[in-house]
Amino acid sequence: MQNNNYKASFTSDNIASASQEVMEAMIQANQSIAQPYGSDELTAACEERFKELFECDLKVLLVPTGTAANALCLAAATPPWGSVLCHEESHINNDECGAPEFYTNGAKLVNVAGENSKISAEHLQEKAGLKKGDVHSVQPSVVSITQATESGSLYSLEEISAIGRIAKAQELKLHMDGARFANALVSLGCTPAEMTWKAGVDLLSFGATKNGVMAAEAIIVFDLSLVEELEFRRKRAGQLFSKMRFMAAQMNAYLKDDLWLHNAGHANAMAKKLADGLDRFPQIELLTEVETNILFCRLPERTIEALHSQGFSFYANRWGKGVCRFVTSFMAREEEVDDFLQAIAKLHSQ
Amino acid sequence: MQNNNYKASFTSDNIASASQEVMEAMIQANQSIAQPYGSDELTAACEERFKELFECDLKVLLVPTGTAANALCLAAATPPWGSVLCHEESHINNDECGAPEFYTNGAKLVNVAGENSKISAEHLQEKAGLKKGDVHSVQPSVVSITQATESGSLYSLEEISAIGRIAKAQELKLHMDGARFANALVSLGCTPAEMTWKAGVDLLSFGATKNGVMAAEAIIVFDLSLVEELEFRRKRAGQLFSKMRFMAAQMNAYLKDDLWLHNAGHANAMAKKLADGLDRFPQIELLTEVETNILFCRLPERTIEALHSQGFSFYANRWGKGVCRFVTSFMAREEEVDDFLQAIAKLHSQ
Amino acid sequence: MQNNNYKASFTSDNIASASQEVMEAMIQANQSIAQPYGSDELTAACEERFKELFECDLKVLLVPTGTAANALCLAAATPPWGSVLCHEESHINNDECGAPEFYTNGAKLVNVAGENSKISAEHLQEKAGLKKGDVHSVQPSVVSITQATESGSLYSLEEISAIGRIAKAQELKLHMDGARFANALVSLGCTPAEMTWKAGVDLLSFGATKNGVMAAEAIIVFDLSLVEELEFRRKRAGQLFSKMRFMAAQMNAYLKDDLWLHNAGHANAMAKKLADGLDRFPQIELLTEVETNILFCRLPERTIEALHSQGFSFYANRWGKGVCRFVTSFMAREEEVDDFLQAIAKLHSQ
Amino acid sequence: MQNNNYKASFTSDNIASASQEVMEAMIQANQSIAQPYGSDELTAACEERFKELFECDLKVLLVPTGTAANALCLAAATPPWGSVLCHEESHINNDECGAPEFYTNGAKLVNVAGENSKISAEHLQEKAGLKKGDVHSVQPSVVSITQATESGSLYSLEEISAIGRIAKAQELKLHMDGARFANALVSLGCTPAEMTWKAGVDLLSFGATKNGVMAAEAIIVFDLSLVEELEFRRKRAGQLFSKMRFMAAQMNAYLKDDLWLHNAGHANAMAKKLADGLDRFPQIELLTEVETNILFCRLPERTIEALHSQGFSFYANRWGKGVCRFVTSFMAREEEVDDFLQAIAKLHSQ
Repeated sequence: MQNNNYKASFTSDNIASASQEVMEAMIQANQSIAQPYGSDELTAACEERFKELFECDLKVLLVPTGTAANALCLAAATPPWGSVLCHEESHINNDECGAPEFYTNGAKLVNVAGENSKISAEHLQEKAGLKKGDVHSVQPSVVSITQATESGSLYSLEEISAIGRIAKAQELKLHMDGARFANALVSLGCTPAEMTWKAGVDLLSFGATKNGVMAAEAIIVFDLSLVEELEFRRKRAGQLFSKMRFMAAQMNAYLKDDLWLHNAGHANAMAKKLADGLDRFPQIELLTEVETNILFCRLPERTIEALHSQGFSFYANRWGKGVCRFVTSFMAREEEVDDFLQAIAKLHSQ
Repeated sequence: MQNNNYKASFTSDNIASASQEVMEAMIQANQSIAQPYGSDELTAACEERFKELFECDLKVLLVPTGTAANALCLAAATPPWGSVLCHEESHINNDECGAPEFYTNGAKLVNVAGENSKISAEHLQEKAGLKKGDVHSVQPSVVSITQATESGSLYSLEEISAIGRIAKAQELKLHMDGARFANALVSLGCTPAEMTWKAGVDLLSFGATKNGVMAAEAIIVFDLSLVEELEFRRKRAGQLFSKMRFMAAQMNAYLKDDLWLHNAGHANAMAKKLADGLDRFPQIELLTEVETNILFCRLPERTIEALHSQGFSFYANRWGKGVCRFVTSFMAREEEVDDFLQAIAKLHSQ
Repeated sequence: MQNNNYKASFTSDNIASASQEVMEAMIQANQSIAQPYGSDELTAACEERFKELFECDLKVLLVPTGTAANALCLAAATPPWGSVLCHEESHINNDECGAPEFYTNGAKLVNVAGENSKISAEHLQEKAGLKKGDVHSVQPSVVSITQATESGSLYSLEEISAIGRIAKAQELKLHMDGARFANALVSLGCTPAEMTWKAGVDLLSFGATKNGVMAAEAIIVFDLSLVEELEFRRKRAGQLFSKMRFMAAQMNAYLKDDLWLHNAGHANAMAKKLADGLDRFPQIELLTEVETNILFCRLPERTIEALHSQGFSFYANRWGKGVCRFVTSFMAREEEVDDFLQAIAKLHSQ
Repeated sequence: MQNNNYKASFTSDNIASASQEVMEAMIQANQSIAQPYGSDELTAACEERFKELFECDLKVLLVPTGTAANALCLAAATPPWGSVLCHEESHINNDECGAPEFYTNGAKLVNVAGENSKISAEHLQEKAGLKKGDVHSVQPSVVSITQATESGSLYSLEEISAIGRIAKAQELKLHMDGARFANALVSLGCTPAEMTWKAGVDLLSFGATKNGVMAAEAIIVFDLSLVEELEFRRKRAGQLFSKMRFMAAQMNAYLKDDLWLHNAGHANAMAKKLADGLDRFPQIELLTEVETNILFCRLPERTIEALHSQGFSFYANRWGKGVCRFVTSFMAREEEVDDFLQAIAKLHSQ
């Protein structure tokens, strides 16, 4: 891949390949025929693995995209006349072309305010019981939080628990969009159980595609009363794979020997390295604390243009004039970061 | 896979692995990062390949399951108050848990009768214009045919064209569920164009998963006015892959050097061989002509039980007492068929 | 209305006006302001009246059309991946432009066979538990029967009970479309309770619009677990009236002093009179036994044409060559029937 | 109605009765049978009347509730993956239990900011073309404005035209929720045409229920390309009345001899009188300019309590501490307003 002209890309972690171990697991899974639709041994093993990981009984449904995972979770958690309480900047609100509305048959996403792309418990409290029982209004039914958020920030365990308590008190389900679950986990240094069901999470979209697999996400169902419905909804949505073993193989390899944590840890470290390097330039303003693998900063317009013209990839000017976003995937290499920082140094020394 | 105790399975072609060439293409695609959501080179090449294959301009949308392909096609072809004219035995009517109803926002599947799992032009004619303009009734909007059908039978080119003419005359779209498109094509010995748009097909679910790939189907859009809508519907359904290149890689390998035709040809040949073998037993009644890779016959109850207890897999007694279905995939080996026939011979000689 | 040229119309009972008593109740309700959305006294009185009538606890939701009543009932009784077991000739299957599919978010109407527009317990038994738990298939969720049916026939109490027992055994809800509930009741001579919840009915569309009111139907909920959902669904469907008192006023007048039974009894009697008269003509074949206010018979084509040209209104040739349908409303007068029979006599004597 | 204890109610205009002329038209319509489903003479006359009124070709669909009118209009104006641009305080956003989401099959309501419950052209401009063509995002499809708004304010003709120009430029449909259309019209003193299609409105929910009829609203379709779809959607929603003539009769009487304008003018005058009276009390702060028949002001808590305990009805403390809303209907009488003001004077003099 890396010819001489290759320049680092920080556009998103969705440009990455699959980890070698994941690819090998797929090759292995391809050696034989297998029962379809999840009745195979790899899928069974996958669920067992998740039970160990989360230290509880649970049910796993594998699906190929994060949008499918989120939308299915929400559909199981709200009636069509319900509302989904979420942050304005959330993926479900902005980036899924209305998949939550489609899967829920028209539930309403209601925004809850908060700093750093996170809903605050205080604002949630105001909206969690609003117009309950009033037939003229949609009914608050589920809270959805993203860990880590779209801007790379993290909910602390205390914050999740506070949200979980409000949800429980108001009889709302709590969903976590964990597209970058691993990045959050290694950063917080807690257990998967602590970051989810112990804090009140009922349903988790456990992401893997951005962090080392090809196309596989796991819906982790802690509230087992929702399982049967989810099974039908998954099939009805065209999301039930006949050759399920290939998604299970990916997930099993992803979880084996802490590959997922290793990948996420590296991605986070590269973001930190990048931030530290950028912070040294007086012309550059870091806009967020780097908690995971996403970093926002403000660059001079001329620097942006020069870097782009040199072949470096990253999004700029989408979130404001001069604002740039950098996402480091598990494949990001130290040399790429160094190369990028040197390019800036050279530009700023001219 | 093949230890000494291994016995052939004829339950379905969805138990098969992916072809070696397909797996290798995925390994190759994994060598580098790539643009997401189909903006990569492999996806572009895939569309070009399909244009050559079908000898026309067209648009391709890759999705991972046949149910998704069918449901998306139908959603683009009918308003919610429309009806989908299809055979009672069709996959969309029986085996998709209402995915067509979900994706179309509640269109109605109306059955059209016909022999051998095929809708007849005569019966279609009766229903194609029914209650047109009557607001009390759903409005015929799309015809969906399956080639090859769920029972392995085939529409002749003439039959497709006749249906296509009725559809055109009544301003209905024509959709083809081609989950076993390759099996049909090699059996008819015609070109892809002849079996589709030249006969009036507007939208095709081009299946590959049952015949050599891991999880990839192509929606082939001949009626380009439907493309924009399909793009939004695919995303909204959680069916748009970030790492699209892996589906494209599978499909490209599948189509390269006629792998798909070779696979299907072999599957069909194994079904023929099986049928010829079974036909020699006076105790066994063939119930369908073998046109592709599916075969129905009636076996003595004791024979069924004995074969199952020996470890052979196939469905029995689902479609009537003693009725058995055999599906041969591209992985079926001649020795397996021989082994199976010998087992029957031995049972019947006792 | 009746000038000299006026000729009887037997097209449908939906052409009728409202009874005088109903109109007067509306005038009365118009004398004062009232609380909106059903918080008024007339609406409360309406529910009390229905409790007496049905001799049980129940909940009433008023809606203006039979299609709304049916579709709301079904939506509360099935998930989107469920199926509604109903007769092919039922109103929900043919005459509501897919309202059940819309309100249920895509449930599937599955036809159950039976004579005289009625589903038979035997055929229901076959389909009531089909593919239960199979995620590839929609799940039987609710049975819907029509009393009286679209062809005017009646389920006996024994037939309803047999269906009710199957529904209960298979954990299906039982819905009754009672667009012509009164006509059925007076014909069977039983109590409302016997014809509904005592026979297993969970939800009833209690029709009134065809039999003396302007626009009001009552959803009668015997299974109180479905009430909360129905309240939200009604509002969400734009079916919750701010000035609910006017629907309640209609319904209260309709039920007062047995007006509803009187109206239905008269409509039925007129159909009987018409049938007896037609039966005397050797050229006319009665096709159904007259159980309520609908009658099918076969007339000579010339007779049909002549009657139509004289100004008589009725549907002909829709259900087969020469087949005519006559519906008598509560407004039908004996003189109209006599006049019509005399016209035929005159035609046949020429 | 008015016994000695009767006290004025200013809770909403939906508590009112129907005008005498409307009631008489219904009685008249009840004199004869009529063709069903809108094929009657009164419905035809209604459409003709609206054509004159709006000085253009148009199509009318009568429905019984404002929620139904709004939701149907929006469903015809946006695909499921579209967005509806509207003010946060709009009825469609807050008070319809998600009916727009239901009818549109899951479109998204996106809020556009602006003062006085009105979206501003400036803010609309920012959102009208957002993410056009981006499959990850819902697509702006229709703008919905309310005239008069929920707080009683008015868009000027210039403001509507500015919005209409943006809508046209971005190929968005423009819908007007005219639940209080008459109140707005008499206040602006313009023609119906000027306030709608001449300013770019494609679809209008023409309200009547709050201003003198029992239950009838008219969907006025200026963009005739949307008519066919609306007809099917209305039936499918259970909103097509068999005895349509009764809605038409109401609407015809409402429009005859300027009854609708007279009613609205009186309601507005009563609000003005009330505002002028309240303005004289130093303890009371008027919060909105009275443009139609709605008035917000802040009253001392003790005054609110005392008025409520005396039997006066109005909403308080819903929109902030001490904030009261007063709505005057066409039935409000001068004596009621005087009586109310005197009660306050007495309280404040103590």
